Amino acid sequence: MAPDTGAVRRPAPHVHPRPDLPAAVRVYEVGPRDGLQAEATVVPTPVKAEFCRRLAAAGVPALELTSFVSPRWIPQLSDAEQLLAVLDLPSDIRRVVLAPNRRGLDRALAAGAAELAVFVSATETFADKNLHTTIDGALESARPVVRGAGAQGLATRGYISMCFGDPWEGAVDTSAVADIAERLLDMGVASISLGDTIGVATPGHVLDLLEALFDRGIRPEITAMHFHDTYGQALANVYAALSAGITEFDSAAGGLGRCPYAAGATGNLATEDLVWMLHGLGIATGIDLDTLTATSRWMSTVIGRPSPSRVVRALTASTS
Amino acid sequence: MAPDTGAVRRPAPHVHPRPDLPAAVRVYEVGPRDGLQAEATVVPTPVKAEFCRRLAAAGVPALELTSFVSPRWIPQLSDAEQLLAVLDLPSDIRRVVLAPNRRGLDRALAAGAAELAVFVSATETFADKNLHTTIDGALESARPVVRGAGAQGLATRGYISMCFGDPWEGAVDTSAVADIAERLLDMGVASISLGDTIGVATPGHVLDLLEALFDRGIRPEITAMHFHDTYGQALANVYAALSAGITEFDSAAGGLGRCPYAAGATGNLATEDLVWMLHGLGIATGIDLDTLTATSRWMSTVIGRPSPSRVVRALTASTS
Repeated sequence: MAPDTGAVRRPAPHVHPRPDLPAAVRVYEVGPRDGLQAEATVVPTPVKAEFCRRLAAAGVPALELTSFVSPRWIPQLSDAEQLLAVLDLPSDIRRVVLAPNRRGLDRALAAGAAELAVFVSATETFADKNLHTTIDGALESARPVVRGAGAQGLATRGYISMCFGDPWEGAVDTSAVADIAERLLDMGVASISLGDTIGVATPGHVLDLLEALFDRGIRPEITAMHFHDTYGQALANVYAALSAGITEFDSAAGGLGRCPYAAGATGNLATEDLVWMLHGLGIATGIDLDTLTATSRWMSTVIGRPSPSRVVRALTASTS
Repeated sequence: MAPDTGAVRRPAPHVHPRPDLPAAVRVYEVGPRDGLQAEATVVPTPVKAEFCRRLAAAGVPALELTSFVSPRWIPQLSDAEQLLAVLDLPSDIRRVVLAPNRRGLDRALAAGAAELAVFVSATETFADKNLHTTIDGALESARPVVRGAGAQGLATRGYISMCFGDPWEGAVDTSAVADIAERLLDMGVASISLGDTIGVATPGHVLDLLEALFDRGIRPEITAMHFHDTYGQALANVYAALSAGITEFDSAAGGLGRCPYAAGATGNLATEDLVWMLHGLGIATGIDLDTLTATSRWMSTVIGRPSPSRVVRALTASTS
C-alpha cells in the first residue's frame, strides 16, 4: 500500500479474532453505582440520569444504576428513588440496582427496580470493616433480597468482594470463594460476580479461581468477573478469563471510581480499555467506543478530574 | 484463618504459576534510553548514571543505556560518551547502546560499548517521518552497524518500529513485519524486538504476528516484544506473547517516556506493572519490585511528573 503522508488516522483496534475465545461479551457497566460511589464530588440526580442515558446511547447492554443502601453510609447514592423516577431507559437494557438488605429491597421494589444485586464478602475482615457483619451475616442479609426479588419474578446478581486478596488477610483461598459462590447460588441468585476489590489478581490466579468454581459445577455462563486496575492487571486478567469461557465483565466508563485502600491508585477497570481489547479480538459488545469515550470526557468535567482510562486519554489527545 | 484486624498488609502479587508459560523472563529495561529520550526535562549525566546503577541494584538483567544518535536529533542523549565513561555496572548485566548508523557505531565502539542495537521501521511513512529515509534505507544504515559490531565480537539487537499499526497507514501487515525481521536476521542481528510504537496491538494481533514470524522459522528465543501502554493493552499483549513462548520483554521503569503521537497518553509499558504480573504467574525475573519502585519514585522527582505506572502509584499510596 502506498503510504498516506497526509493526516494522522483516528486510532482504532485492528481486528484479529481468536477461535478459542467467546464471540460476544456482555459489558456490565458499574460507573453510575460503583464508580460514583467512590467519587467525592456529589453528582446531582439529573446529571446521573443523563450519564445513564448516554451510556445507553453508547450501546451498553447492562447498567448498574444505583444502590438502595442507607443514605448515611453512601450520601452520593441517597437519591436512588429520585433517579429511578426520572430514568426512561430502553427495556432491552439490563437495569440493576444494589439492595444490601430487606429495607433496601423494599425501597428498590417500591421504586420499580427491574433487577437486583446483593453484596457479600469472601473474607471475615472485609465483612467486618466494610459491611459491619460477618461472612455469614452478609449472606443472611442477602437472603431476603434474593427471595423477595424472586417472589416478584426479578433476578438477583450476587457480588463477592475480595475474591483474590484482602488488605488485611493477604491472599484469599480459591476454595473459600467457591464456598460462598455456592451458598449464593443455593440461595437463588441468577449469577455471581467475582470482585478483585483491591486489584491484586494476576492471570494464573484468575484461572485457578475459575477452575475451583467450575469444579463445583458453577458454569461460566453465570459467572462474571469484576476486576480493578489498581496494579494494571485488569485487562490481562480479562484475557485469561475469556480463555476460560467467561462472557460477562464489570467495568466503569472512564475508569470512574477510586481504590478506597490506596489513595491516588486506580480503581475500576475502564470500560473503554476493556472494549478496545474485546473489539481488537473481534468480540462483539454492541458498544460504540467513540460515543462512550465522549461520555467519559463529559463525566470527567462533572467530577473535576481526568479519566484514568488509557483509551480515553489517548483518544482525547488524538482529537484535541 | 482468623482475621488479622491489625495493620493493612503490604500488597504483593500472590503466586499462581501456569504450566504452559515460560519459567523465567528477561526484562529488557529501556528507561534510560527510550524512556528519557521522550522526556522534556534534560537529565544530567551523573543522574542518568545513578538511575542505571539503581536499576542494576534492583536486579534488572538487561539495560539499554543510551543512543549514539546525532546530538542534534536527540539532545537528551548527547552525553552518550560521558555516560559510558562514568558507568561501572556489573559485567553480568547486558549493557546495550543504540547506534543508528556507521558514525554512531564508531562512537559507540570508541566509548567501549558491549552490545549494540539498531532501529528500522515496518512502514514507509514512519521511515520517512521519523528516520528521514525509506524502509530499505533504514536497513542499509543498520547493515554496517551489525557488521562492524560483529567484527568486534559484539552482538546487535534489531528493533522494528510500528509492527502493529502506524499513525498514518493504519494496520500493518504481519507479513511485512516478518519480511523485515528476516532481512535483519539475514544481516546478522542476534535478536529482534517487535515494537508496538503507538500501542494499538491487542492479544490476537500479537499471536497472529508471532505466528507469521514462527512460520518463517524465526524462533521465540530470539524474539522480544516491545509494547506501549497507550491504550492499556500492553500487559494483556505480554500475557498472549508468553503463551507463544516469548521470554524477553522491553519496558521502562515507572513507565518513563511518553507517546509522541498522542500528547498526554502513556508510552512505554512500566517495568513494575510487567514484573507484578510475571511474579504473580510465578515467572522468575531476578528483579526486586520494591527497589525498582523506589527507583521510579526517585526518577519521578527528577523529571518532575508522577509515574503513570499503576503499580508505582498504588505502592506509593500504600506506603505514604
